[in-house]
Amino acid sequence: MTGFAPEEFQARLAHAQNRMQAAGLSALLLTTEPELRYFTGYLTRFWESPTRPWFLIVPASGKPVAVIPSIGAPLMAQTWIDDIRTWTAPDLVDDGVSLLIDTLAELTPNGAAIGCPDGHETHIRMPLADFRRLQAGLGNRQLTGDHGTLRALRMVKSDAEVARIRTACQVAARAFARVPDIASVGTPLDQVFRRFQMLCLEEGADWVPYLAGGAEQDGYADVISPATQEPLKPGDVLMLDTGLVRDGYFCDYDRNWSVGPASVAVRDAHARLIEASDAAFEQARPGATTAQLFHTMNAILTDGSAGTDAGRLGHGLGMSLTEWPSIIAGDHTELQPGMVLTLEPGIAVNGKILVHEENILITEGAPEFLSPRAGPEITEL
Amino acid sequence: MTGFAPEEFQARLAHAQNRMQAAGLSALLLTTEPELRYFTGYLTRFWESPTRPWFLIVPASGKPVAVIPSIGAPLMAQTWIDDIRTWTAPDLVDDGVSLLIDTLAELTPNGAAIGCPDGHETHIRMPLADFRRLQAGLGNRQLTGDHGTLRALRMVKSDAEVARIRTACQVAARAFARVPDIASVGTPLDQVFRRFQMLCLEEGADWVPYLAGGAEQDGYADVISPATQEPLKPGDVLMLDTGLVRDGYFCDYDRNWSVGPASVAVRDAHARLIEASDAAFEQARPGATTAQLFHTMNAILTDGSAGTDAGRLGHGLGMSLTEWPSIIAGDHTELQPGMVLTLEPGIAVNGKILVHEENILITEGAPEFLSPRAGPEITEL
Repeated sequence: MTGFAPEEFQARLAHAQNRMQAAGLSALLLTTEPELRYFTGYLTRFWESPTRPWFLIVPASGKPVAVIPSIGAPLMAQTWIDDIRTWTAPDLVDDGVSLLIDTLAELTPNGAAIGCPDGHETHIRMPLADFRRLQAGLGNRQLTGDHGTLRALRMVKSDAEVARIRTACQVAARAFARVPDIASVGTPLDQVFRRFQMLCLEEGADWVPYLAGGAEQDGYADVISPATQEPLKPGDVLMLDTGLVRDGYFCDYDRNWSVGPASVAVRDAHARLIEASDAAFEQARPGATTAQLFHTMNAILTDGSAGTDAGRLGHGLGMSLTEWPSIIAGDHTELQPGMVLTLEPGIAVNGKILVHEENILITEGAPEFLSPRAGPEITEL
Repeated sequence: MTGFAPEEFQARLAHAQNRMQAAGLSALLLTTEPELRYFTGYLTRFWESPTRPWFLIVPASGKPVAVIPSIGAPLMAQTWIDDIRTWTAPDLVDDGVSLLIDTLAELTPNGAAIGCPDGHETHIRMPLADFRRLQAGLGNRQLTGDHGTLRALRMVKSDAEVARIRTACQVAARAFARVPDIASVGTPLDQVFRRFQMLCLEEGADWVPYLAGGAEQDGYADVISPATQEPLKPGDVLMLDTGLVRDGYFCDYDRNWSVGPASVAVRDAHARLIEASDAAFEQARPGATTAQLFHTMNAILTDGSAGTDAGRLGHGLGMSLTEWPSIIAGDHTELQPGMVLTLEPGIAVNGKILVHEENILITEGAPEFLSPRAGPEITEL
């Protein structure tokens, strides 16, 4: 149903089961959208509804087993999953918990360790009371961590996954190229946001889960605020940062524009951002670490000062807008072919910030830009 | 920052603290987007990134305290919250956990019960390992449930909240009215989806987190599948169900169209759906229960047979696409003025389904349609 060959899912499963064996896990218990989709291809926007829990069990051998609300069964039946167990959700007395306990008891031995993703960038998507009930109902089977299994698998993309991220990046590139058509002096920022999302859709996005940005004199205060109704003024720097989805995969990059001629400070800052992302790009080969990319960019951006407050200068990207690893001083993940990263340097300008972002693919040799590499000169609207 | 008066947040806080006192809770610990926004007004699409945890503590007295990644501090400082404690996230060694422990220890007495929403439609948005570390670090303070506090508060909307939902419904109404401009015989369904989202944006949506639907002969197989590239054909029933957001509040309703003349079965089924939602509407007054609304609709829809598989025939609506209560046989929530509900009857037609959905407001007297009440005749494209 999602355009991946069955071999793609078989390879993911085999990889997971190898790691599970090494870690002594009898099963994985997964509860979030990307986790379920990774092993099944199950793609729906219905996850926007927080009402119903969804479960997938990856056993030590054999195919994954879905334990899901009955409303999802027809769509799950279109995936490669055969064993689909359902309950009528929501059930205020027992919302799938006893069905999940029974299924886990059937699929794992007494005393089994059942791995739930428990590290950074994960959470358990089910009510806390139900999670505690589940643990109690499992008796001597323990809900443990997944020993980084999901992180290790999802962090390195297959060729088929990379192709989707590349397509998403190309959709965004066409939308970014048309921004001069929708934004000029006097356009309220919230209208820019609406029109840009329309451009993304027109150019082929399936949906636009993420858009952030800003427009103020010489930069912006932060990169996560919703749009104001403030009209664009000469001297503003407009930034749009989009995470659009095509076939279930994200792009995540931004572009900056100067409304009218840019100040010298802005021109210099933008050039510095590009210098930073270019330097990290040159370094981004197997064996280098994310911490090294951080230090390379940070040295260019700060001239030794503290830098901006964003906390990191890039991250992984794929089925989620942001994924492991983090380009921060404390993350020493070694780059591997198939990783897709954002390079996201930020710099302070007259009390504001400018942020630039590109998406790149790590290969055996030189990396590849998935977003169209920006030049040092900021584009003028 | 979100257009609510400070009194709105003070009233929410007072209501929460009253309930907390009755339940013996020394604080609430909140981790999800609507929970934080409910008490702060903090509105950003940055939650799309799963990387960083965010925490809000509602103490037994005094204003809430935010414990958040530093990247969010400037925006949080625009809300009515004064006490904002930050760490540089992500931190792979200690991602806010010790700061959270210290803050909870400062704000609550020894032996305190700290309430986390733990019931249906909730989850804890932080890594499981960190949650376990938090509990261990709190010593004799216990992380318990919130005794339904968030459910009770959020389920009954203030006038200011209702005004936003009404506006969102009106945006969707204008977009639905223009569907004949974007969908006709030969239009691929995925293009209908893209163009409809563009209409929602053009009519004033800030973003379109949810769109589902289908188009097949005499109905559709389910209501959660992504769009196919299949072109619309005469005899198809096109359904679009959108949850768009305006100023942080959702609408959630759908419309059906017949591509060319509808079959008798479809015309009858559509009329039956309207009969069901109208009957529930008439009944939807304070004192009635959601279970009663369910049985009223179900009797009309099934003539005693099992009905469709959706599991419920409507739900609450507000800051989330779907909220408590559920219109199911097992939910005996009494309706109260200020509740906003969807009425969502579904019916089987020749092995397919049709689903209709309206949004209504419960008042002291007769309810009010927030979506424009649909008539019994299905619209022809």
